[in-house]
Amino acid sequence: MNELVVGLVQHAVGETREKTLTRTAAGVRDAAARGAKLIVLQELHCGPYFCQTEDAGVFDQAEPIPGPGTAFFAALAKELGVVLVTSLFERRATGLYHNTAVVFEADGSIAGTYRKMHIPDDPGYYEKFYFTPGDLGFTPIDTSVGRLGVLVCWDQWYPEAARLMALAGAELLIYPTAIGWDPHDTAEEQQRQREAWITVQRGHAVANGLPLVAVNRVGVETSPDGIGKQQFWGSSFVAGPQGEIVAQATTDQEETLVVAIDRARSEQVRRIWPFLRDRRIDAYGDLTKRYRD
Amino acid sequence: MNELVVGLVQHAVGETREKTLTRTAAGVRDAAARGAKLIVLQELHCGPYFCQTEDAGVFDQAEPIPGPGTAFFAALAKELGVVLVTSLFERRATGLYHNTAVVFEADGSIAGTYRKMHIPDDPGYYEKFYFTPGDLGFTPIDTSVGRLGVLVCWDQWYPEAARLMALAGAELLIYPTAIGWDPHDTAEEQQRQREAWITVQRGHAVANGLPLVAVNRVGVETSPDGIGKQQFWGSSFVAGPQGEIVAQATTDQEETLVVAIDRARSEQVRRIWPFLRDRRIDAYGDLTKRYRD
Repeated sequence: MNELVVGLVQHAVGETREKTLTRTAAGVRDAAARGAKLIVLQELHCGPYFCQTEDAGVFDQAEPIPGPGTAFFAALAKELGVVLVTSLFERRATGLYHNTAVVFEADGSIAGTYRKMHIPDDPGYYEKFYFTPGDLGFTPIDTSVGRLGVLVCWDQWYPEAARLMALAGAELLIYPTAIGWDPHDTAEEQQRQREAWITVQRGHAVANGLPLVAVNRVGVETSPDGIGKQQFWGSSFVAGPQGEIVAQATTDQEETLVVAIDRARSEQVRRIWPFLRDRRIDAYGDLTKRYRD
Repeated sequence: MNELVVGLVQHAVGETREKTLTRTAAGVRDAAARGAKLIVLQELHCGPYFCQTEDAGVFDQAEPIPGPGTAFFAALAKELGVVLVTSLFERRATGLYHNTAVVFEADGSIAGTYRKMHIPDDPGYYEKFYFTPGDLGFTPIDTSVGRLGVLVCWDQWYPEAARLMALAGAELLIYPTAIGWDPHDTAEEQQRQREAWITVQRGHAVANGLPLVAVNRVGVETSPDGIGKQQFWGSSFVAGPQGEIVAQATTDQEETLVVAIDRARSEQVRRIWPFLRDRRIDAYGDLTKRYRD
């Protein structure tokens, strides 16, 4: 079996950045100790999900890439000899910020970065205030464990993003995420939302014949103004190339999943379901339109 | 509630075309009697799934559209006052055939046709021999019950098809289907395949905020040469715009589902999840490439 052992670190935030980093590092060490060669962190894992309100002071938390923040993860990746997928708040220039996934090679170097392309904005998720939409395109990142199709959170609702990564040779789709329930919603609506989030991603795995890793945080976070509250639903998971769930975490516990992915399965699955062969590229032109009206 | 009652007619084939048509018509009458205003049939419902082998004699079964075959369904739609989605083997010209969905208006007129765009070809599904790929594009069909995004079977694996229908204003995604298990596969593989088929379609519902109707046949069909065998897995279903399963048929029984779809849900869902707003159309150009190499 041509396997890749992947670690998913699902956690809540600590009281300070340092305590949160300690928590993250503990998860990474645990995953590495259990054999993971690729370790994926949740979205914006260095602290609370700060987009519940719009506050210009939060830009102080952004960091240059590379910079002191990346040095911490570079050292961790190097020490443990693992490829590490992180999710950071990038300060690119004065007044220019991105939601950026940084992938560290097992030697501590930066293998590549991905700037979140699709930026949400809805009550409690005011990301358009903080993040400039990515300008690096849907470009996979080459690493010693394979070509990684790293995307971030809101991207996960877009089949276009997954497809473009697959067409560029990604061998694995990866989504650091921060998504949760609005406590005001009914239990039924909450259930539909979580299930939809899982389903659409499993659908990307199916449509592209690729395994998929999604990592989401847990814990309840109240906004600084005391008004907003998000109950992050965890449920980090690994799906195989037929969308089958290989492993899944709970909705409310800190967990480090360590999962073996059989990389040879994509080869088999794409032979029986050769979707890439039959795409009607002659008829897809309107996908670049906002609306066909 | 702005509801649309939809009927799904899932059945096996009869010994002859006439007996199969009788079975189909019985299902349609049952659905109409139970209040359905839109009734969807399975793929190539007039007889056995003939693509298990390549046999030029089968072209005798193809029919012009409109023609004697469509007259039967036109009369049925008119008599019952329902919009009827059929799936026929179209003879367009000598040597030119399509797998074509024909939608009949409640007055018996033809509301529109869709020629299957993505054509599969794998052992037991030799469709590239029989069907010329559609040339009508991904164009929804306007009817008295709404704008219908009618696609056919293999199309269901392609997020591009669903998206293009949604971008053209489709209010409902519809898939007549003929898909089954190879009895030689393990139970685990069979389960993964059926689940993948359901999941990828639910994913289209989620990604586009649209309800979705899929109708598949049941029964075991042996190929004329006695070599092939397909066990069609039924499982016809209706999903809501968050991908939630509203109703689902069995894997092996003839059933007519009658399901109320709340058309107002898409409006609500697309307001909380405004995916169409954030599509990165500036970065989707490569979707029209075969591969990004």
